[in-house]
Amino acid sequence: MNHALLKGLRVIESSAFVAAPLAGLTLAQFGADVIRIDPIGGGIDYGRLPLMPGGRSLYWTGLNKSKRSLAVDLRSPRGRELIQELAAAAGVLLTNIASSWLSHAVLAERRSDVITCTISGNADGSTAVDYTVNCATGYPAITGGGSLDAPVNNVVPAWDFACGYQAAFAILAAVDSRRRTGEGAEPKIALSDVAFCALSHLGLLTEVELLGRERESIGNHVYGAFGRDFGTADGRRVMIVAISAGQWTALVQACDAAAAMAELESSLGLSFRNEGDRYAARESIAAVVASWCAARPLAEITRVFDQHRVCWGLYRSVGDLLANDPRVSPAAEVFEQIETAGVGRHLAAGTPVRVGAQPRGPIRPAPLVGQHTDEVLQDLLGLDSATLGRLHDARIVGGPELDPTAINGAGGPRRERAV
Amino acid sequence: MNHALLKGLRVIESSAFVAAPLAGLTLAQFGADVIRIDPIGGGIDYGRLPLMPGGRSLYWTGLNKSKRSLAVDLRSPRGRELIQELAAAAGVLLTNIASSWLSHAVLAERRSDVITCTISGNADGSTAVDYTVNCATGYPAITGGGSLDAPVNNVVPAWDFACGYQAAFAILAAVDSRRRTGEGAEPKIALSDVAFCALSHLGLLTEVELLGRERESIGNHVYGAFGRDFGTADGRRVMIVAISAGQWTALVQACDAAAAMAELESSLGLSFRNEGDRYAARESIAAVVASWCAARPLAEITRVFDQHRVCWGLYRSVGDLLANDPRVSPAAEVFEQIETAGVGRHLAAGTPVRVGAQPRGPIRPAPLVGQHTDEVLQDLLGLDSATLGRLHDARIVGGPELDPTAINGAGGPRRERAV
Repeated sequence: MNHALLKGLRVIESSAFVAAPLAGLTLAQFGADVIRIDPIGGGIDYGRLPLMPGGRSLYWTGLNKSKRSLAVDLRSPRGRELIQELAAAAGVLLTNIASSWLSHAVLAERRSDVITCTISGNADGSTAVDYTVNCATGYPAITGGGSLDAPVNNVVPAWDFACGYQAAFAILAAVDSRRRTGEGAEPKIALSDVAFCALSHLGLLTEVELLGRERESIGNHVYGAFGRDFGTADGRRVMIVAISAGQWTALVQACDAAAAMAELESSLGLSFRNEGDRYAARESIAAVVASWCAARPLAEITRVFDQHRVCWGLYRSVGDLLANDPRVSPAAEVFEQIETAGVGRHLAAGTPVRVGAQPRGPIRPAPLVGQHTDEVLQDLLGLDSATLGRLHDARIVGGPELDPTAINGAGGPRRERAV
Repeated sequence: MNHALLKGLRVIESSAFVAAPLAGLTLAQFGADVIRIDPIGGGIDYGRLPLMPGGRSLYWTGLNKSKRSLAVDLRSPRGRELIQELAAAAGVLLTNIASSWLSHAVLAERRSDVITCTISGNADGSTAVDYTVNCATGYPAITGGGSLDAPVNNVVPAWDFACGYQAAFAILAAVDSRRRTGEGAEPKIALSDVAFCALSHLGLLTEVELLGRERESIGNHVYGAFGRDFGTADGRRVMIVAISAGQWTALVQACDAAAAMAELESSLGLSFRNEGDRYAARESIAAVVASWCAARPLAEITRVFDQHRVCWGLYRSVGDLLANDPRVSPAAEVFEQIETAGVGRHLAAGTPVRVGAQPRGPIRPAPLVGQHTDEVLQDLLGLDSATLGRLHDARIVGGPELDPTAINGAGGPRRERAV
């Protein structure tokens, strides 16, 4: 937990990959009790790369921080019934795994005001992932100077992120509505809808529909204003942006380029106060800025740009970011050192949201699969030790000792069962 | 409005660019009454490209659908006071424009339980935009086969989207908490934190910290499993992904490649049931799939892939998407034809979230700046006609007739003031 704003909210999560786990993480980071339902031994993304030598996935442990895990045989009738009971007890289910036995209708029979949030690839339920949606957005044809014949994919899973955060939002909207009306809800989000709606929100759809204009493929230039990457005298690379008038003035002053720009404006018949004119003249402007940057080492550029409040950033590798950028360090409020079983001690992020006077609680590490099986069944369903023992013996549920990454001690101490 | 789940929630938005307007749009699409505060004549992004011939921005009208707009002189003391009164009356302020006179502390003096959500570039309040944050994430060095010397920027504003949705989520969490505790809150979100936290959530930070490993720059290959783009016999391009075991089996069957894959597995000493092994052998696997695709036109590939439920997608331009993909059409539930003043009739997206039995209300077009000045001041502050008239005469507030894109009729009919 990071904040306690959502204290009291309880969510059952049955999920894999990025969007749905991220939605659960977002809720957990605000203090919701998010309980993962995992198959004994872990689900289909439990071994996704990158892996620690002992087998723990840094991807999975990254997305499932601050949650609890209950391991259950999802094919056994009693196992399914337990999950239905848990979802009804919690009142909120978050899932991207379509299961008829865990549908909204089935759960609503147990609890009429249940909230079921389902994420799918396409709205018709067919499969799609970030990459197979992104290719249809037109973006790969205009990224990195690419084209339809030589498209450039995003590496950032942009649509997964947007979809996950939208799902977390939709759950809160449904919870808020339930608090006022007493009624449940069934929000459904398709990854493809998230991406295509974004094209409408940013104006790209209307641009083609009404103006018949496709966005140009302009490499690292920023569309609609001025911005591009530039090399420094000492071999580093910086991104410089001048979207607002203030950013433009700052850049011109920092590069001592007022005369050069006035000359360009006069020869091109443009006014660079106008961001559209800066965009039109981007190559000419970039030539001036490129000369200035190429003649100076990064240290000097940093000093001058920060003095003039230029909007700029340094290209970094992840290792460079971790080693040299104070925004990613234990000193930054959103980061913290945590200890994850099977991983070790490492820097981890909580929620990026800082909430004024609210105290920030510790970031709990991702669980082992089944780490909270007993406590969840006791807390939510009131099962006693004898019943828990029978469920374990019948392999209907499992504890952390059945987590494959916990074998050989790689996953931390094997916990004795409470029964 | 699209859903009425948030009916009764009222938000004052003072914003520009992508993240904050998107947060407001997200709230508006769920039924919140989101009221933009705009300078008379429009704010710094009101003329951002792309533009209609009459000057209306498709970017601005895309991000500000379903909101109301009040135009006010932000420099006049009475104008500022009006906005403070409105924020206190609404109880929620969303902004990415730092103004000391509109700070949480100032508003809390008028209303102790006010919620103020502020988006900034960096947490210290310094400027940053999507591009100047993204360059520090390491992604441009591994996108499109790029490197630190030749980075490839995202064109999708991924962090803006993540940040906007996080802000909408944070506001709802604060509203939910206020409903229970009676206390306000001050969520603050920095764009840079959103991006850097994502690196933690996806495991990239820990990979470098504990394993000393930077992600490779692998072009259009999908990291950690199998996926890449392929050309068809008729000159189209498809993205194919096999992350899960089911997706892999589907692809192998569709391409009739079981024997070829068995041979590869045997010669490489790998098992392609394991997604990590598929990733290791990605070039060899891709060669087989490439031959299969290159020998077939898109129509045949579509038929075979859909029959086998392969996870794939077609690379499209935005125009192709709009013309040929039924997911982006008036028939798709999330889209609708709307009429925007100064733009005309066009396809527009509501929220990507479908909410079960909830009826979907109409998508309201983006307002002209000042279109709702009088009704908002009447509704929220109870100002009478005489007072409104004096405010207009003193140019402290403005109506839609002062919207520069409404001149010459391009912005639709010039409305007579109610006073």
